[in-house]
This record gives sequence, C-alpha cells and structure tokens, in this order.
Amino acid sequence: MTESTSPGSVAAPPDDRAYSPGLEGVIAGETSLSKVDGARGRLVYRGYSIGDLVERGTYPAVANLLWTGDWERTHRLPTAEIPGPVLEILRALPSSTKPMDALRTAVSAWGATQNLPWPPTVEHARALTSFSPSALAAFARLRQGSEPIAPDPSLNLVDGFLYQLTGTPPDPGTARALDAYFIVGAEHGFNASTFTARVITSTRSDIASAVAGAIGTMKGPLHGGAPSEVVDQLAKVGSKEHAEAWLREALARGERLMGFGHRVYRAYDPRAAALRKVAESMDKKPDWLQLAIEVEDIALRLLREKHPERALQTNVEYYAAPVLQGVGLTPDLFPATFSLARHAGWTAHVLEQAADNRLIRPDVRYIGPADRELPVG
Amino acid sequence: MTESTSPGSVAAPPDDRAYSPGLEGVIAGETSLSKVDGARGRLVYRGYSIGDLVERGTYPAVANLLWTGDWERTHRLPTAEIPGPVLEILRALPSSTKPMDALRTAVSAWGATQNLPWPPTVEHARALTSFSPSALAAFARLRQGSEPIAPDPSLNLVDGFLYQLTGTPPDPGTARALDAYFIVGAEHGFNASTFTARVITSTRSDIASAVAGAIGTMKGPLHGGAPSEVVDQLAKVGSKEHAEAWLREALARGERLMGFGHRVYRAYDPRAAALRKVAESMDKKPDWLQLAIEVEDIALRLLREKHPERALQTNVEYYAAPVLQGVGLTPDLFPATFSLARHAGWTAHVLEQAADNRLIRPDVRYIGPADRELPVG
Repeated sequence: MTESTSPGSVAAPPDDRAYSPGLEGVIAGETSLSKVDGARGRLVYRGYSIGDLVERGTYPAVANLLWTGDWERTHRLPTAEIPGPVLEILRALPSSTKPMDALRTAVSAWGATQNLPWPPTVEHARALTSFSPSALAAFARLRQGSEPIAPDPSLNLVDGFLYQLTGTPPDPGTARALDAYFIVGAEHGFNASTFTARVITSTRSDIASAVAGAIGTMKGPLHGGAPSEVVDQLAKVGSKEHAEAWLREALARGERLMGFGHRVYRAYDPRAAALRKVAESMDKKPDWLQLAIEVEDIALRLLREKHPERALQTNVEYYAAPVLQGVGLTPDLFPATFSLARHAGWTAHVLEQAADNRLIRPDVRYIGPADRELPVG
Repeated sequence: MTESTSPGSVAAPPDDRAYSPGLEGVIAGETSLSKVDGARGRLVYRGYSIGDLVERGTYPAVANLLWTGDWERTHRLPTAEIPGPVLEILRALPSSTKPMDALRTAVSAWGATQNLPWPPTVEHARALTSFSPSALAAFARLRQGSEPIAPDPSLNLVDGFLYQLTGTPPDPGTARALDAYFIVGAEHGFNASTFTARVITSTRSDIASAVAGAIGTMKGPLHGGAPSEVVDQLAKVGSKEHAEAWLREALARGERLMGFGHRVYRAYDPRAAALRKVAESMDKKPDWLQLAIEVEDIALRLLREKHPERALQTNVEYYAAPVLQGVGLTPDLFPATFSLARHAGWTAHVLEQAADNRLIRPDVRYIGPADRELPVG
C-alpha cells in the first residue's frame, strides 16, 4: 500500500472547462410540472393556465394535478393532525422563533416521526402538504400563548389552515382569496428551493429532508422577495391623493418600487392578474385593495415614463401582499405561508426526480493554494 | 390590465439548449478549500495533503484551516452546550428516530434559537460545528434512557464527543483514531450535500438552514455509501482462512465487494491510506483491524484478476468502518458521525459562498403537456 502523496510535485494541469456561475442558463433537468413563459406572461401547470386554475380550481385539486397529472376538480385535502412529538417540539421553540425556522424544524421533526421509505409516494406528498399548515398554525398560536386547534376534517386545506390559525372558520371570500394565493404559489419551475429539493432527493433521501432543505432555501431574501415590503410601501403611500407625489419622490431618490419587475416575466405576471381578479371579487373588499389598484396604475405610468426601455410590470408580490394582509395574516407569517403553498410543487418535484433519478452533482474548480508542505510544529 | 393567457395558442419554440443530466461535468463554482485529484490519489485541503494533516494535525486545527485559511496546529474547539429548547426537542424525539433525522432536526432547532444574521461568520461556523457533536451524543444517550452529559471544556472536539457519548474520557489512541476519521471526512469538494449547502446559502439564508439541508442530503444512500456494510462483510468473512473462498464466491455471485472502488479515485484513496496508518498505530489494536488488513490484500488481488481493466482500489469506507466500530460507535451512528465530520467543510463552503455570493439557480426544460383547456365542471 502506498499513499500517492508526492510533496513538492507539479500541480495538476489547470482546469479549463467552462465555468457557469450560478448555473445561469444551464439546463439541470426536465419537468412536466410547469412552464414559465416570461415573454408571453404565461404560467402553466401541466398545460393548464394559472388563470384558469385559479378561476375554476382549488389548491387541493391543483396539488393533486401536480402530483398525479390528473385533474379532479373536487379533490379534497383537509389539514392533518400533528404527531404528538412534533407538537411537543413546537411547544419547546422560543416564542421569538422566526416562523420559517419553526416550519423547517417542524417538517424535519415530522420526518423523524415517520419511517419514510424510498421511493417517495403521492401519499407522502399528501401527508406532508397537509401536515405543514397545521404545524404553522399551531406555532403561530403557541407563540402568542394560545393553545393549538385540532384540524377539522370537514374543511379543505386552506379553510382548515385559517380555522386553525384563528379559531373561526373563514368566510368564503377570505378562504377563496387565500386559496388563490396558494394556487399561484404552488409551483414555479427550478427556483432555488425547488432545485434544492431535487438535489436532496437525488441522493435517495426522503421527502421531509427535501422539503426541510427547500424551506431553508426559501428563507433567504434573494429567493422569493418580500411581499411584506409591498404592505409597507402602501402604508407609506397612504392615499390615492398622495400616491403620485410619493411615488415620484421615491423614484427620484433612486428607490425600487416594491411589487414591480421580475427576473423572468417581461409581460404582466399572470399570477398578479389572477390574484387581483380574486381579490376584487371578495365580498368584504378591504380598503387596501382599492388603494393598491389605484396605486398600481399610477406606478406603471411613472415606471414607463422613467424607464421606457424596460418592460417593468406588476409582479405577483404586489397582489400577494394585500391578499395575505387581507385574510388577516401578519407580515412575519408571509414567507412561511408562501412555503405552505409551495409544498405542492416541491413534493411534486420530489416525486418527478425520484421517478427517473440520477444523482445531481456538479463539479467545482479548485482555485486555492498549490500543493505545499505543512509547517512542522 | 390584461392577463396574457391565449388559450389554444401555439406553444413556445422548443427549448434546444444543452441538457446536462445530473450536472455531470458542469463547473458550478470555484473553491479554495480542497482539491480532489482522483488520478493521482491525492486530496488536499488548502494545499496541504490529507496524509500530512492526519499525521500532524487535529480536527479543530483542520476545521480552522478550512474556515480561515490559517494553519494553527494547536487550535482548540471544545464541544458546545446544547441550548435549553434544543435539549427539550431532543427529549421529545421518539427513541426509534434515525440518528440522521435527529441530527437534522437538532441543527434546524439550533438555528431557530439563534438570531443568525447575514452574512455567516467564522463564529457561526465554530458554534454550529461544536454544537452538533453534543446534540448527537445527547440523542444517542436519550434513546437508551440515559441522561445527556454536559460538555467538558477541557476536552477537544472529538474527545469531547466520545466523552459525552460514553460518560468516560476516551483513551488517547481511540480519540486519535476518530480524530483522524473526522479529518479525512471534513471536506471533499462539491459532493451533493456540500452543493446543497451552497445553493441554500446563495439565497442569503442562514448557516443552520444550509447545514440542515446538507444533513438531509447526506442521509441519502447514494451520497456517502454505507461503511456499515463493510462491517457486515468483515463479519461474514470471519477469518483470514475463510477470506479467499468467501470473496471468490461473492465475486462469482456478481456481488460488489464493499470498500473497494470510487467514482473519482483511480489510485489508492489517500483517506483510506491515512486511516489505515492511524488504526495500525492504536495502542489497543482491535481484532478486526488485523483481519481487515489481511482481507484487503486478498480482495485487491482477486479484483485485479477479475477486472484487470478497472482500477479498483480500496476506498475510504474500508478503513472508516473498522475505525468507527473500533472506537465503540454502533453502525447506525456511522452516517451521523460522518455528518459531524463534514460540518467543517459544509460551513467553510457556506462562508466561501457568502463571501462572493451569486444566486445558484439553473434552468429546467419543460417536457409536459402542450397548452390545453381546463375541463369544465
């Protein structure tokens, strides 16, 4: 036996393969789940447009479509019981815990209580997607000193989540608005969190490991933006009368208007359009909605004036923010609620990865010190 | 406002960019941390060979080298206290929990109790790397009905881990052998778990999210192999006298010999060489070591006979298994112990990613159904 260390030997030839920083433009996989067509402002899940799905579907039906490929409009998915040890774990978390940290820990603990075999199944996806809303609602109550509320199996997922959060079944308009948010947030190709879920799955790890990793990824502010900043902005604008002056001053200061512009969408974000439509049809239309609509028109006009060369359009966060606020969620719950919605897509990608698995393992280029002797002593 | 859905419209042009399945051969980043030279059987951390580091270093010194680039041979890192809420969480986990699930949950919960700001720092890396051995040791005791043992700040990390696991400070030979294992397991380029940690960090998420995701990735059997299978194989071989017959029969049945062959290393795995040397120098040389050495020679001879065209060599798992078993770890703790060792590399990659950050977000090719109408009703 010899160890092939050759101190002082010549370094290996330089690595001249192409480097793809951030993997931008590199096709890392194939999917049947969704197509994001930024130029045309179009998002489809398995061929169906997001506008149609919001208009005629529910989140459980959309989740089932993503998992199975089948459209069953009346498909139901109530929220699930929290396993006893996981509830103890939620009780142990300090009340100052960030909701994303609590949700990531809850999903990890849920995985610890299941005996998840390979490969992951639609049943695993259903179980995890229906567990997490109960867990987030329980944590949101526990941190305020309230007791968690058990799931009501007669309620569908989004209604059940709001019931477990507030103690009261939501009115239909409120539930419908949040359900629409869950549908538009369910899936969006290879964003960083979905890619993480697929890398984790590619080692034949389990679905809880994949989703815990995805939640940790989504926690980063570069992932999903910050709908709560749209709320802050609307509060600062205050009223339609002040809107144009405030927006002009913000642009003059070089500030970014929150809720406008997107990395991929050059046309109007179809998710924003769908959410606006749902919000407008709510029975109790909240004050902020009218203001948001009026501010949007002014903001788009000013952005066209200032940046005629850029195709700056309203993005999903602009209408996500008032919907989330309108259904009674506090801004610090927005990211974790986005994660609940994305469970359908994450778990569908886990199933798709597992069905035709291959380890995802890129290479790296070494740019560190040349071979050298370790100092003695 | 218009939503650009055009039912029945022509699909977008086909995506003809190159597809890189599994990202094999794609350079996804640059690193100064380690170079894996499979052809020469050489592994260096920041230019220093793994053989030298094992011979003249300790795990805390190697971790510090990876984090800071500085070699301080006497650098110390005792194990850390477990925050109160995390200890409660470990107590809440069922005793049947897999150690990898327990460790992932503990790291996630640890992150929930810290207020980790961006960017991650060397202090975060130290804190997490010194927390996890305490957490795994506590879980390993709790599941047997024993109480956790508080860290002894006079012990360095690997000694402290063994003390908290067993209640007795380890003899120097045992601690030295496991420390060598920790050094060779500390870092190995862009494996799937390290890549996951970098993707998570690239969204500006925190170090606990990144390491929890990495543990979930390493849990998959395609990641790190299974040193416990080497132990099983040695048990089946039983004695030197039976070895050749047993190995010949296994090869004739088309079975893989555990502990031989590696995706990257064509020459002798330098980690196996270093571990063998350390194991041989142990005061109380365990029985299995002599058997492992004798079986290795026979296995390599038979593999050369059967597959002269392949460069099948002993890999790291072959000597990792007897070292882990020899220091008293049960086989179901092997993967989580590997994760403890890899904390140094994971957290060093988190720091390196954060220092020159760019979102890691590859593209995906849509191969699902063409645009279609949602069925009514």
